[in-house]
Amino acid sequence: KPTFISRKDSVGIANGLAWTSVGGEMLPVEVAVIPGGSGKIEITGSLGDVMKESAKLAISYARVHGEEYGITADRLKNVDIHIHAPEGAVPKDGPSAGVTLTTALISALSGIPVRHDLAMTGEITLHGNVLPIGGLKEKSMAAFREGISTVLIPKENESDLFEVDAEVKQKIHFIPVEHLSQVLKQALLLPGHSSSRGTHTVPQATNLIANDKSTKEPATVM
Amino acid sequence: KPTFISRKDSVGIANGLAWTSVGGEMLPVEVAVIPGGSGKIEITGSLGDVMKESAKLAISYARVHGEEYGITADRLKNVDIHIHAPEGAVPKDGPSAGVTLTTALISALSGIPVRHDLAMTGEITLHGNVLPIGGLKEKSMAAFREGISTVLIPKENESDLFEVDAEVKQKIHFIPVEHLSQVLKQALLLPGHSSSRGTHTVPQATNLIANDKSTKEPATVM
Amino acid sequence: KPTFISRKDSVGIANGLAWTSVGGEMLPVEVAVIPGGSGKIEITGSLGDVMKESAKLAISYARVHGEEYGITADRLKNVDIHIHAPEGAVPKDGPSAGVTLTTALISALSGIPVRHDLAMTGEITLHGNVLPIGGLKEKSMAAFREGISTVLIPKENESDLFEVDAEVKQKIHFIPVEHLSQVLKQALLLPGHSSSRGTHTVPQATNLIANDKSTKEPATVM
Amino acid sequence: KPTFISRKDSVGIANGLAWTSVGGEMLPVEVAVIPGGSGKIEITGSLGDVMKESAKLAISYARVHGEEYGITADRLKNVDIHIHAPEGAVPKDGPSAGVTLTTALISALSGIPVRHDLAMTGEITLHGNVLPIGGLKEKSMAAFREGISTVLIPKENESDLFEVDAEVKQKIHFIPVEHLSQVLKQALLLPGHSSSRGTHTVPQATNLIANDKSTKEPATVM
Amino acid sequence: KPTFISRKDSVGIANGLAWTSVGGEMLPVEVAVIPGGSGKIEITGSLGDVMKESAKLAISYARVHGEEYGITADRLKNVDIHIHAPEGAVPKDGPSAGVTLTTALISALSGIPVRHDLAMTGEITLHGNVLPIGGLKEKSMAAFREGISTVLIPKENESDLFEVDAEVKQKIHFIPVEHLSQVLKQALLLPGHSSSRGTHTVPQATNLIANDKSTKEPATVM
Amino acid sequence: KPTFISRKDSVGIANGLAWTSVGGEMLPVEVAVIPGGSGKIEITGSLGDVMKESAKLAISYARVHGEEYGITADRLKNVDIHIHAPEGAVPKDGPSAGVTLTTALISALSGIPVRHDLAMTGEITLHGNVLPIGGLKEKSMAAFREGISTVLIPKENESDLFEVDAEVKQKIHFIPVEHLSQVLKQALLLPGHSSSRGTHTVPQATNLIANDKSTKEPATVM
Ligand SMILES: [Ca+2]
Ligand SMILES: [Ca+2]
Ligand SMILES: [Ca+2]
Ligand SMILES: [Ca+2]
Ligand SMILES: [Ca+2]
Ligand SMILES: [Ca+2]
Ligand SMILES: [Ca+2]
Ligand SMILES: [Ca+2]
Ligand SMILES: [Ca+2]
Ligand SMILES: [Ca+2]
Ligand SMILES: [Ca+2]
Ligand SMILES: [Ca+2]
Repeated sequence: KPTFISRKDSVGIANGLAWTSVGGEMLPVEVAVIPGGSGKIEITGSLGDVMKESAKLAISYARVHGEEYGITADRLKNVDIHIHAPEGAVPKDGPSAGVTLTTALISALSGIPVRHDLAMTGEITLHGNVLPIGGLKEKSMAAFREGISTVLIPKENESDLFEVDAEVKQKIHFIPVEHLSQVLKQALLLPGHSSSRGTHTVPQATNLIANDKSTKEPATVM
Repeated sequence: KPTFISRKDSVGIANGLAWTSVGGEMLPVEVAVIPGGSGKIEITGSLGDVMKESAKLAISYARVHGEEYGITADRLKNVDIHIHAPEGAVPKDGPSAGVTLTTALISALSGIPVRHDLAMTGEITLHGNVLPIGGLKEKSMAAFREGISTVLIPKENESDLFEVDAEVKQKIHFIPVEHLSQVLKQALLLPGHSSSRGTHTVPQATNLIANDKSTKEPATVM
Repeated sequence: KPTFISRKDSVGIANGLAWTSVGGEMLPVEVAVIPGGSGKIEITGSLGDVMKESAKLAISYARVHGEEYGITADRLKNVDIHIHAPEGAVPKDGPSAGVTLTTALISALSGIPVRHDLAMTGEITLHGNVLPIGGLKEKSMAAFREGISTVLIPKENESDLFEVDAEVKQKIHFIPVEHLSQVLKQALLLPGHSSSRGTHTVPQATNLIANDKSTKEPATVM
Repeated sequence: KPTFISRKDSVGIANGLAWTSVGGEMLPVEVAVIPGGSGKIEITGSLGDVMKESAKLAISYARVHGEEYGITADRLKNVDIHIHAPEGAVPKDGPSAGVTLTTALISALSGIPVRHDLAMTGEITLHGNVLPIGGLKEKSMAAFREGISTVLIPKENESDLFEVDAEVKQKIHFIPVEHLSQVLKQALLLPGHSSSRGTHTVPQATNLIANDKSTKEPATVM
Repeated sequence: KPTFISRKDSVGIANGLAWTSVGGEMLPVEVAVIPGGSGKIEITGSLGDVMKESAKLAISYARVHGEEYGITADRLKNVDIHIHAPEGAVPKDGPSAGVTLTTALISALSGIPVRHDLAMTGEITLHGNVLPIGGLKEKSMAAFREGISTVLIPKENESDLFEVDAEVKQKIHFIPVEHLSQVLKQALLLPGHSSSRGTHTVPQATNLIANDKSTKEPATVM
Repeated sequence: KPTFISRKDSVGIANGLAWTSVGGEMLPVEVAVIPGGSGKIEITGSLGDVMKESAKLAISYARVHGEEYGITADRLKNVDIHIHAPEGAVPKDGPSAGVTLTTALISALSGIPVRHDLAMTGEITLHGNVLPIGGLKEKSMAAFREGISTVLIPKENESDLFEVDAEVKQKIHFIPVEHLSQVLKQALLLPGHSSSRGTHTVPQATNLIANDKSTKEPATVM
């Protein structure tokens, strides 16, 4: 199995999901917090302009909401941050790694580990809303192949779950999310919470499939 | 309904209106004010050069007129500002988001919320004049679909209201504006003003339609 | 009438004249002086490289000659400057806005208003000389349509006045200028001078038409 | 033999392996640490974007893990770093010099020499994982021609060793590695370790060939 | 006559000579020294890369040799410098304005005027050597048309004087120069020297024509 | 003879050799050290990317090895450096000016003159190794035409001397070098050494020709 995918709960790495012309793939994001810095940002991994902008949204979100995760303003001024998406030679673009970039970044800055058996996909806005993505079927299949047990998806993509293979839906717990705060609650192994797989509190969990194809925009549930 | 559109009165988000090849669309603008900054500006959302320049006009307007909304010079020096237009992968350009960019920015810096049931469109100049835009009919239809009750339009576009569907004009209150100060008076929920929908003071409100097609440039009313 | 054109004597705006493939147009230039700055320059309005360089010539002229208009060196260090040419989506280029850029800039920095019933056209050099321009006939017609009463033109374009419509020449007072100091003397409403239209002191004023087509370069008068 | 290849144990140079259209080649990387600097980075050698990003990964790794090799944070702030890949006119790109760049950099900053009879190839991630590369057969042949005795390869490339010539495998000791810490342990002549060729402790050494072509992804051994 | 050409002895302007597809032209260079600066350089006039590099050579020459003309190191640190070549819309390139750029710059920084009845052409090197140029015949004709009495040419172009019209050679005094120090001695109206036209000391003056066409590179005389 | 070639022992200029489509040429490099600077570097002469990178290698070499030539770290911080390759309009590229760039730079910083009757060619690496070049025959002919008596060539090019004309080899002393320290020993007129032509100590001097064409890579002698 690809060694660059997060295989144990770790700090500064989150498993995303990408959709390419040949199917879905795991797309991990790594973040390093470099001591003795001055707030500079380095972004690598052959990222296109849209994905680089997603990284900037993640950084602004972390700067505004960092204190909720124990990240002080001082910390952000005295480090440099490096965001990387392996593999280096593979061009990557699109907005759907927004949740992954933010999760890896908040983890790296706070020291809180990320669940390695969880993957995620979703565009973010500057204020933390999670917007819908494409390729849910293919992305789910990639998560399934890699043994992922939980996948966070945008609330607006709930209606697309009917396309996902039945076998995949049996093994993977899909959690729809509307906001980054929900993503971080699910993905980060916050102290004081049970961290073992399967005992996570998953308040808005649902495996419901929007079978009604005519309903493109399902009513908001959460 | 798209989750990235402002659905309740909030700080740092304003609902704009865009005109694309496939019709009108809501185009919200988000602004985040990042503490512990040094006056740096980040602009994201796949914006073209003209729209980026609109954002710069908005920033200069806020720097010159900020004190009218309680924004001190010190505040501007000690924060960074991030302006974003979701959705990140959709290229956006043109000057007509000028009023929206300025409204979201002044709201974010002052902490004054923006009416969520109001949308707007209009180019701005550096001195705050509001210039006419295209696609009023399509933009109005988008606002109507999203349940918007008030739309701010440039004074010079009053004559284009005759093209707008009768049903739309029945539901939406169109307010022509000539200057950013009027935009901000309508859109910001300033303290000491009634904030409930329908009781806004709308001094220059008008639903008049310029039926006379020969009059391209109607006499200035305000 | 276009609302972005200066319609009353104001600080930081001057009416220029542009020559496009579809005829002449008014081309106003706006300047904002932003307090709490550090000498940074922002230039917007979809300007091409040549027009951006004209703006830089204007800035250097203001820095060297500012004291003649009460602009101290300290003032220039503690502000940022934003120069804008509406309308934002219209590409603009060429050197002939040099006089307009300088006039709007000196006005914004000094607080001295600019005559709104006056338009101007002319390339500038770094030392303030005014060089000839093209499209005088078309530019004059645009000034005429907008009700302008005085137009400043380069001395070397005097010979082109014979091409201007007789009706235009009857209504508009053409003043040939050789140097920016003359431009500013005519355009700025300096304290201690009569500011009402028609009583301006216009020492080098002339409506003479160079009828002799063989004389491309008329003898220097001033 | 090419004089730019490391021919004796030296500080700040490591022998990499490149794969070009005409076969494999040795690709040394040189690093100079310049006293009296301020943390600036210079990268030369006609490197493409992906290889420049590999250099940035190497730098971040050195900044985060430097102390393990006696590199203080102060040292990194008071020097400039220059990374060069001879020959200057040959365009180079790709991610597989990641291990070489990091090794030369850590050596230059720490003063610890690098084994000159050892070559290496492998992409790195920001957290130090070693990812698989292409062209193992050709790269091995180049190392063989240059008299290299040990080659570090990514663990995931073990299965490709079956393609390598028998003669090459007889002379060269292949060591699969999963992480940069293993690379540095093998390549750096750390004080207190035996440094003579042939007596290196090579805990995970293996010459095993993955003969089973159907197994693209061999089970993890280490 | 074009008003942007220097018509009286002035500080910060020197008359160069350009060679275009339609013949020779006067190419003046203006320099402004801006008080209250910090050593920044602005270069305008639609200059190509080669001519911009000539400007940088001029600046380095002035910084190294300024004291010979009374320019202190302190002065250079407390001003900004703007170099401009009118007319702004005309693209200009090539190395032959090197002498003109340096002369205008040294004049602007030292306050010493430049002879307005003198024109010049010549590439410079960093150490002040004057290299040969093309188009001497056409450039001379342009100087003649503008009433120039003295033209400085590179020593290596002496052999090209045979191509210049007899009438031009009768009116214009050609002075071959090998080094910038000679250029500045001729062009600057240094205090203590006679400044009236015709009484300049011209030690290396010559009107000799290299009639021997076979001699491409005449023996060095100076 | 071209005046930009070094014709007497001078500081800050070294004679290189270029190989173009029309044969060999002398390619001098000039360096100016500008007092009152802050470590900034200017590189001019229409250099391509590879040659600019050679200049950066020269600068790093000078910063690391400067003290061997009496160049203090303080000196490097309080000057700016300008590197220029005349003639300004001729595009130049390639790595073989590495030795020339370093020699001119070390001379300019140390004040030690460079022999003007010596020319050189060779790529450098960051650690000072001299790599082979192309066009030795053509470059030698250019040196011969200009009256050069000594040419430094890369050790690896010794085998190419058999191609050089017998007449050239009779007049020119070829010295193979492996490292920049050897280049500088030969080219700089260090105090305490005899500086007259012909009495230089040339320890590794050789005119031997590698007649054996089959030996592409001759055994290392030094
Ligand atoms: Ca694997
Ligand atoms: Ca892959
Ligand atoms: Ca929705
Ligand atoms: Ca959409
Ligand atoms: Ca109007
Ligand atoms: Ca228009
Ligand atoms: Ca060799
Ligand atoms: Ca090679
Ligand atoms: Ca004239
Ligand atoms: Ca002209
Ligand atoms: Ca010559
Ligand atoms: Ca030549």
